[in-house]
Amino acid sequence: MTKTYCTTESNMWISPHTGLVTSLPPAPRSSFASDNVAGAHPLVFEAMLAANAGHFPAYGADPITQRTETSFRELFDEDVVTQFAYGGTGANVFALASMLRPADAIVCTSHSHINVDETGAPERVLGTKLITVPTRDAKLRPSDIEQVSSMFGNQHAPQPGIVAITQVTELGTVYSPDEIRAICEAAHAVGMFVYLDGARIANATASLGGTRAALRSFTRDAGVDVMTFGCTKAGGVFGEAVVFFNKSFTNRSIYVRKQTTQLHSKMRFIAAQYEAMLKDDLFITLGGRANAAAMKLFNSLHDIESLKLATAPDANSMFPIISKPEREILQSWAHFYDWDTSINQVRWMTAWDVETAEIEAFAAGVREVLD
Amino acid sequence: MTKTYCTTESNMWISPHTGLVTSLPPAPRSSFASDNVAGAHPLVFEAMLAANAGHFPAYGADPITQRTETSFRELFDEDVVTQFAYGGTGANVFALASMLRPADAIVCTSHSHINVDETGAPERVLGTKLITVPTRDAKLRPSDIEQVSSMFGNQHAPQPGIVAITQVTELGTVYSPDEIRAICEAAHAVGMFVYLDGARIANATASLGGTRAALRSFTRDAGVDVMTFGCTKAGGVFGEAVVFFNKSFTNRSIYVRKQTTQLHSKMRFIAAQYEAMLKDDLFITLGGRANAAAMKLFNSLHDIESLKLATAPDANSMFPIISKPEREILQSWAHFYDWDTSINQVRWMTAWDVETAEIEAFAAGVREVLD
Amino acid sequence: MTKTYCTTESNMWISPHTGLVTSLPPAPRSSFASDNVAGAHPLVFEAMLAANAGHFPAYGADPITQRTETSFRELFDEDVVTQFAYGGTGANVFALASMLRPADAIVCTSHSHINVDETGAPERVLGTKLITVPTRDAKLRPSDIEQVSSMFGNQHAPQPGIVAITQVTELGTVYSPDEIRAICEAAHAVGMFVYLDGARIANATASLGGTRAALRSFTRDAGVDVMTFGCTKAGGVFGEAVVFFNKSFTNRSIYVRKQTTQLHSKMRFIAAQYEAMLKDDLFITLGGRANAAAMKLFNSLHDIESLKLATAPDANSMFPIISKPEREILQSWAHFYDWDTSINQVRWMTAWDVETAEIEAFAAGVREVLD
Amino acid sequence: MTKTYCTTESNMWISPHTGLVTSLPPAPRSSFASDNVAGAHPLVFEAMLAANAGHFPAYGADPITQRTETSFRELFDEDVVTQFAYGGTGANVFALASMLRPADAIVCTSHSHINVDETGAPERVLGTKLITVPTRDAKLRPSDIEQVSSMFGNQHAPQPGIVAITQVTELGTVYSPDEIRAICEAAHAVGMFVYLDGARIANATASLGGTRAALRSFTRDAGVDVMTFGCTKAGGVFGEAVVFFNKSFTNRSIYVRKQTTQLHSKMRFIAAQYEAMLKDDLFITLGGRANAAAMKLFNSLHDIESLKLATAPDANSMFPIISKPEREILQSWAHFYDWDTSINQVRWMTAWDVETAEIEAFAAGVREVLD
Repeated sequence: MTKTYCTTESNMWISPHTGLVTSLPPAPRSSFASDNVAGAHPLVFEAMLAANAGHFPAYGADPITQRTETSFRELFDEDVVTQFAYGGTGANVFALASMLRPADAIVCTSHSHINVDETGAPERVLGTKLITVPTRDAKLRPSDIEQVSSMFGNQHAPQPGIVAITQVTELGTVYSPDEIRAICEAAHAVGMFVYLDGARIANATASLGGTRAALRSFTRDAGVDVMTFGCTKAGGVFGEAVVFFNKSFTNRSIYVRKQTTQLHSKMRFIAAQYEAMLKDDLFITLGGRANAAAMKLFNSLHDIESLKLATAPDANSMFPIISKPEREILQSWAHFYDWDTSINQVRWMTAWDVETAEIEAFAAGVREVLD
Repeated sequence: MTKTYCTTESNMWISPHTGLVTSLPPAPRSSFASDNVAGAHPLVFEAMLAANAGHFPAYGADPITQRTETSFRELFDEDVVTQFAYGGTGANVFALASMLRPADAIVCTSHSHINVDETGAPERVLGTKLITVPTRDAKLRPSDIEQVSSMFGNQHAPQPGIVAITQVTELGTVYSPDEIRAICEAAHAVGMFVYLDGARIANATASLGGTRAALRSFTRDAGVDVMTFGCTKAGGVFGEAVVFFNKSFTNRSIYVRKQTTQLHSKMRFIAAQYEAMLKDDLFITLGGRANAAAMKLFNSLHDIESLKLATAPDANSMFPIISKPEREILQSWAHFYDWDTSINQVRWMTAWDVETAEIEAFAAGVREVLD
Repeated sequence: MTKTYCTTESNMWISPHTGLVTSLPPAPRSSFASDNVAGAHPLVFEAMLAANAGHFPAYGADPITQRTETSFRELFDEDVVTQFAYGGTGANVFALASMLRPADAIVCTSHSHINVDETGAPERVLGTKLITVPTRDAKLRPSDIEQVSSMFGNQHAPQPGIVAITQVTELGTVYSPDEIRAICEAAHAVGMFVYLDGARIANATASLGGTRAALRSFTRDAGVDVMTFGCTKAGGVFGEAVVFFNKSFTNRSIYVRKQTTQLHSKMRFIAAQYEAMLKDDLFITLGGRANAAAMKLFNSLHDIESLKLATAPDANSMFPIISKPEREILQSWAHFYDWDTSINQVRWMTAWDVETAEIEAFAAGVREVLD
Repeated sequence: MTKTYCTTESNMWISPHTGLVTSLPPAPRSSFASDNVAGAHPLVFEAMLAANAGHFPAYGADPITQRTETSFRELFDEDVVTQFAYGGTGANVFALASMLRPADAIVCTSHSHINVDETGAPERVLGTKLITVPTRDAKLRPSDIEQVSSMFGNQHAPQPGIVAITQVTELGTVYSPDEIRAICEAAHAVGMFVYLDGARIANATASLGGTRAALRSFTRDAGVDVMTFGCTKAGGVFGEAVVFFNKSFTNRSIYVRKQTTQLHSKMRFIAAQYEAMLKDDLFITLGGRANAAAMKLFNSLHDIESLKLATAPDANSMFPIISKPEREILQSWAHFYDWDTSINQVRWMTAWDVETAEIEAFAAGVREVLD
């Protein structure tokens, strides 16, 4: 990768358009590469510190974990079972392993995190094929379930057993409650179950109304069987929660959790983070902040036609188009990821702690290069 | 389990020996059930908080992780590769998965954590048989390697590929550097590799001299190929480190880490804990404290013959004999685990933060019931 | 599926075109559904019977197996290692398991048998992701290898390690020796290895010249690392052979064979079939017969435009287009499989023992319905 | 291994006892190493040849397979489901995979074939721990189930889900119907299921009465959930049958069979062998012949005290004690396997086709060396 246009030290660069040497404004202190570049919210840390005092039983038998399980039941207004895990990939694998029957396959979009971002962990740990459905917007549809139904009864094909969707999707779109309900109905009608990867559940909840009722509308009420409730991206240090609405899958789940390496000994430190996140709906507040930051960035830049930012972001990311010379200048100045180089697509994503001044600084640099 | 002898509320109990009603002293505030009942050391938390400021690249590309990798090279005075994981089971699985060749089996003692305490995670994630060797003291010996060598070349048997040992062992014993060197030599002589589960490496190091040279003597110098360097039990919040002395196993290890669900996004929070642990050899200090607490407990009680505490603890645990009625009284008063009920064996274990007064309180209760 | 047009008992049907009731000619006694509908060649059975006399060591230590290993070395004029397996899926899994390194992925076309016809056996037994490449003709190309190369070094992606191709492909096409050589060169250039699924190697060899030199040209000479050499479809009872050109993969393969359930105890009965198949190049003769049958069928029908049989078959199958009402009539009369119902595509395939009269009978029925 | 005592060419040897040079009688033409050294019974071959005529649907949709499924229902006088597989290890893995729930473990004796003779196939393909129980006679007992019950509810342990027993056992002993019934009752009482590895079901049936009622008494009537019904050792060419008494395990079993590589395309050739085996109870006849041969061998030699052949064989094997110099002479003369070299134990096993003259020849050689 030649970077002849860019001298990062001095922010001097030669415009690929004009050939003139010019300078970029100071880079933002925030990163727009991902939401996992941010640290944890102070209240999360405070809760962990409070949990540090004294001796407590390990592996979830401590009072903080037990209190937090109750908090989840209140959050969903239902007798859900909540079991904590270490991270996103692990929580996905643990949850899916609890749900799978012999020879089941998992239906998901080709964009799904379990398909493209987990180094084959599902295939390795689950021993299961992912049946991937191509989509434009990373949203699965009931018709996709209908289509894979042709595999039922064919002994040469694994049997579609679980529909796995992601909310917020990997392309930053958000399923409506009706869309998820339709998927659940289509899946249940043919004997399949629905798993929701909620690594960005905070952003989705904020996007769909910002209330507990909103959260329930696209999970419990829509018919989701099992979901993860992400903490790390929302403003945590580590840890994910698996929430079982369909409790038939909890018969073996505590064993499956350990077997898939997801049982933390000092569980209180995960539970404490969730206690802080659920208190006064902090997770919704933080998800909303990340979303608002993305909207501000969109508003600052969507007039630049070459970016092709047609629609406002549903949550905390957008996927603009930037030509190679221009994106290389910008990535050297303030790193962000290529998404689909075949169409010059990149990803911008905002974390819970991004401030307006940083958004403005980032937008100014982008405008400087692209305008 | 009937608990007729015990009324925990009042600490009143009826002696199984005398039939008299009497009372137990106040229970200790510390638990002697495990070392994972303790929280984290303040310096560890301080380091995590310091790491919380601002945005950093995820997945280990942050400066704290990179600094800590250097600290490990200094610790071992060798160009080791260190890769962080979430927890003990996960680190074991990740490390072993990086080492295994097709049809390899793992040789370990029947007491080993990977065999009895991980819910079959190695079999599930590695797809590998554990060849378990019975031992009296949870220590593997070169002769065990010789014995399994009969499997080489037999197409009906998996091929012994890795020797997995645990230091401190699951029975609280500590291998001498010579013992580990002999194992490594025997393994290497027949083309096998040696993995050391160092979940309690801090206690082992303190036990064997309490210096960095001591640590090296039974790991790097002894010929260990790959090890874990435990943080959580030593006084951390979460996280384990896998240290590769034999770097041929690092060709694929970063992919294997993610594939085995052990890659943390906000890696800086694991690295920061290790930075604190390695600074001024804090891990040795904390391991030494836990060991000293166990020694104090031993010294307080080893005169009670029925406990059969013949030898002083090598590290931070002991495995006394207590009859069922007596241990039920004591477990209700201050919980600890049964170990081998067939011989009335229990486990007492001390954490890094146990204070002398708590040891005395525990010993007083034990003496009250047993004497 | 309504079958209003068809009365199989009387071969009477109502034409979807004319609405007239008419009759089909007598159905062929041969099936054009697959090549595994045929039995075994008499010489194969004769060899098995000859091998039945007396006691012989099991698991491949018998003289027939050893003779046949020599025959394979002569066939390829190279010091290859040949190991027998039970069936096609098992041979694929056994061979690939012998080749995979930790975190490897397998690159194949989306049409490949390992992807769509093995019920997820590769994912289950190998724990490995298949990276599927869309193609028009079921042939992988060097540019596909180039494209997946972007995954190298990305810790969130499994590492492309093996290119798996099928010869004859699942769409009946045959790679030229140059095409396979180009794939091997592209794969080896980036450190990948090439596996060839030769379930229809007999047909491919016949198609590419019908000599041992032809066979070598697209396997050994082209740079293939490991292949299967199919027996069952060619005219056998059961059994497949895995041939290792790259003998680095044989270090563990005999153990991997048993571990993947592919070691037959009475091995002589597989070896005897291969001995018969290699003698006087019987496999080429039989592959050639199946190919010739397909060519006859093509010549009989390719003038029917609606079938869209543009090009003559490379080997023993063709994939015509037939509308739903018409194919239902024909399938009831003489069963064959739908291939891609979204484009009304079906598959016709010929076995080694199909006679000209049967081809004529089949063609007559097809013409009756379609013309 | 030095073989100074033995000159196989001339059958001359130097007695380790007397130091005198003497000669061994001519070696038997039959092998006493295993029962898989024998070929197939002529009626089995005849049935395969008869099945070879013409085209039939693959994968079990042929009339021979369907007829044989009916024959199994008649054999067991119950509506069992029978599904064919390729071999013993594969049938074990396929059956167990159909039965396992998430985090299940399999309880078996340490002698069991799945534990010691399958190169870790169960661990690899099932991802499951085998909980091995030490026994003297390779028979599991209800008390073993009671003992592993302590793992129930412990999240650090896999959950005992299946009891796997072998009939005839790997030490040649035969469970009585009552013994199996007691195991099934103990297993079912704690929610476990029972799998019976019937690789030598023919020998067991012959041993326990030699009738269909006898077969049912220790399988269907005893409460076995799933079993294999071995063909190969009994006098077949290849193929095993999995019989499901508990049909809840057949919901996914046809998919699991293919996924575990055990689906044969030309299924008629397995079915035909079973049709021959079940006709007029041929399998019982052949199992009885093998058993009778073992009894003859026992009767010829049990007076030699050093062999420690205390009890007559239950079926077709015995495990005598022979010192190393003596067994080396004998193994060079007529190969058989060491079983447990630590106690100088070897295995003698008889196949279905061993004739009296061969037994006498073998016994004469043994007596020559040992007497």
